[in-house]
Amino acid sequence: METVRVNLGSRSYDIALTHGATANLGAFVRAALPKTSSVLVVGDSNSWPHAESIQATLTRAGLRAGSAVVPAGEASKCLERLAGLYDALYELAADRSTAVVAVGGGVIGDLAGFAAATYNRGLPLVMVPTTLLSMVDSSVGGKTGINHPKGKNLIGSFHQPAGVWIDLAFLNTLPAREFISGLAEVVKYGVILDAAFFAYLESNSHAVRTRDPGALLRVVTRSCRLKADVVEQDEYERTGLRAVLNYGHTFAHAFETCGGYGTLLHGEAVSIGMECAAQLARKLGLIGDEFVSRQTKLLDALGLPTAPPTRWPADDLIAVMRRDKKAVGGQMRFILPTRLGEVKLFDDVPEPLVRTVLESAVSR
Amino acid sequence: METVRVNLGSRSYDIALTHGATANLGAFVRAALPKTSSVLVVGDSNSWPHAESIQATLTRAGLRAGSAVVPAGEASKCLERLAGLYDALYELAADRSTAVVAVGGGVIGDLAGFAAATYNRGLPLVMVPTTLLSMVDSSVGGKTGINHPKGKNLIGSFHQPAGVWIDLAFLNTLPAREFISGLAEVVKYGVILDAAFFAYLESNSHAVRTRDPGALLRVVTRSCRLKADVVEQDEYERTGLRAVLNYGHTFAHAFETCGGYGTLLHGEAVSIGMECAAQLARKLGLIGDEFVSRQTKLLDALGLPTAPPTRWPADDLIAVMRRDKKAVGGQMRFILPTRLGEVKLFDDVPEPLVRTVLESAVSR
Ligand SMILES: NC(=O)c1ccc[n+]([C@@H]2O[C@H](COP(=O)([O-])OP(=O)(O)OC[C@H]3O[C@@H](n4cnc5c(N)ncnc54)[C@H](O)[C@@H]3O)[C@@H](O)[C@H]2O)c1
Ligand SMILES: NC(=O)c1ccc[n+]([C@@H]2O[C@H](COP(=O)([O-])OP(=O)(O)OC[C@H]3O[C@@H](n4cnc5c(N)ncnc54)[C@H](O)[C@@H]3O)[C@@H](O)[C@H]2O)c1
Ligand SMILES: [Zn+2]
Ligand SMILES: [Zn+2]
Repeated sequence: METVRVNLGSRSYDIALTHGATANLGAFVRAALPKTSSVLVVGDSNSWPHAESIQATLTRAGLRAGSAVVPAGEASKCLERLAGLYDALYELAADRSTAVVAVGGGVIGDLAGFAAATYNRGLPLVMVPTTLLSMVDSSVGGKTGINHPKGKNLIGSFHQPAGVWIDLAFLNTLPAREFISGLAEVVKYGVILDAAFFAYLESNSHAVRTRDPGALLRVVTRSCRLKADVVEQDEYERTGLRAVLNYGHTFAHAFETCGGYGTLLHGEAVSIGMECAAQLARKLGLIGDEFVSRQTKLLDALGLPTAPPTRWPADDLIAVMRRDKKAVGGQMRFILPTRLGEVKLFDDVPEPLVRTVLESAVSR
Repeated sequence: METVRVNLGSRSYDIALTHGATANLGAFVRAALPKTSSVLVVGDSNSWPHAESIQATLTRAGLRAGSAVVPAGEASKCLERLAGLYDALYELAADRSTAVVAVGGGVIGDLAGFAAATYNRGLPLVMVPTTLLSMVDSSVGGKTGINHPKGKNLIGSFHQPAGVWIDLAFLNTLPAREFISGLAEVVKYGVILDAAFFAYLESNSHAVRTRDPGALLRVVTRSCRLKADVVEQDEYERTGLRAVLNYGHTFAHAFETCGGYGTLLHGEAVSIGMECAAQLARKLGLIGDEFVSRQTKLLDALGLPTAPPTRWPADDLIAVMRRDKKAVGGQMRFILPTRLGEVKLFDDVPEPLVRTVLESAVSR
């Protein structure tokens, strides 16, 4: 078992990484939350087999374990499903020590995490991510939330978990497209923070893509550590440092919005967004051709798309980017690479350049 | 103008106390939030005249000021009204620097505050309380939230305001019953923290009750300072210290729940709750008869009730107290006085004693 410690003062916690050792989750929860005697296990229709066995494990560990299932899919990140979790917590007679155990992908982590953040002004939360994306990204960092009909993740709050339990064996049931999508965030960490990790991915793309257990453990552990490093320095997204994690995301958000959620998976949109960001950085003279082609090649080797499936009007995409919640006063903001392993924030990119990148994105 | 500083590290803020000087609110907001260029002013149907003039004031100060009104009353602290505020923020094209300005009583402060806490993972919040209760209590301390069909304030989070603006002239339009209800929390501060303040209230009960401006300023300023002192020491209700503010509230919560919200105003329930708590403390030998009679006399002089309007079954009341969110593992918790100006937490009070207090409460 590997452990990644996230240091956030009184809100510090451990990320435990295992392969098929979830029988030990009860001990992990007891150690992280000695006062807790009841838990609500939340899952979706696809993560449910894992959630059910976790409910049984926690019951065996002496915890009173209720459960709640929501339909799989992004649409569950809504006020109605949130209200359903509040009801389930009430039915369980939850008190302030009752923990929410989120077993699923980012949808479950965000939804159940937000319920934990807001029920009784805050319940302890244990994340048990079951998708690659949620293991390397959404479970680490304390962002929780739901969608507004007009905007993704528009409603939410910061609420750090008391612990994160990663069992890589859960990935065995994950569909290939979902798995590959999660790799986009992994590549992102290499580009923005760690050139050596990027090189490791280049040399081991086959092992990673075929879910070799050793490669998986290395990739997920390193990704968690890199994200935790950033979160430790800018927990509430205030100093601007955390913004580096948005590499590729201003573009991705526009693709997701204009394409309608569901056309592209999040990681696929991020992959295309990183390609666009790299093109933009090259046009600005920040990086050279070699950077762009190494990134394109790696994304490609991992099975990720680097161009949108259809052409969306650049005007629409730009309108979304100006409204992006990271934008301030309607100004587009981009995180762009200056060399492999380093990115900076740019908020003065000429719009025509962005337009050129968007318009050439599909035709390559 | 008086100022009470709430010291919470990076979340510190000022409470400004004025009498009819709200023309200066624009400068106050600009000083507290130099980066803010737009605000959403939220009010209810009764506070609306004040909210409208504040919207005009802020517009004159160069801020883009949208507005949202909800119906007056506790029922507005619900998911539907919350969703309405999210919509209003979206329509305003709110970004992370957009401030929510809550103009109203505790209902508006809690609802608009929770919207601020959760939109875009946290917008700045300015509280402009217009009831006595909200001036001395709900605007200070960072608790925000809404009700669940099964429990009051069951959904919420901690979100400190960037500033609180108290204009005592707003109290001129407040109905007498609402004003008097707010005085219960004022008496509470004297009992739990400050015997001299309690004595001041005894000597000046007439001036206070008739809203003499000088007495009002003194009472509101001192109450804010006392609450701020507690909040500074236990911002997130973790060390147990903040629990002293719950004096009278375990009982009050049960009265409000069993009576149905609306029968008793919150302060009225707290007043009766303090009477019960004092009786309980006397039966436990913690205090003498003199304490009880001084408290009863002061509550009475201020026009506050000290017994429930009808007899509610003690079983029902006790059941609610065991489910109170401050209870842990079904154990009732009481904050009880040990002398004037000092209270302690007791979680081992014999149920029969509680029952006796409840059963004798109406018949006096
Ligand atoms: N909080 C954050 O910091 C953060 C960061 C990134 C993304 N997110 C959010 O995460 C969400 C995306 O996460 P996601 O990609 O995990 O989506 P997801 O939760 O929808 O999971 C993807 C699909 O895989 C299924 N699934 C989950 N685990 C499975 C398993 N072990 N076997 C088989 N199927 C399984 C799910 O039911 C779903 O159909 C988005 O809502 C996004 O906004 C949040
Ligand atoms: N967040 C906290 O720490 C905290 C603390 C105590 C109470 N609360 C909450 O506060 C709420 C009670 O607050 P409240 O007593 O202010 O209730 P309220 O907001 O409902 O106001 C009472 C009544 O006065 C009206 N009103 C408000 N200002 C007025 C004015 N200037 N002139 C005329 N009418 C006016 C309102 O429309 C309402 O009808 C409850 O929901 C309670 O849970 C919160
Ligand atoms: Zn992402
Ligand atoms: Zn109160």
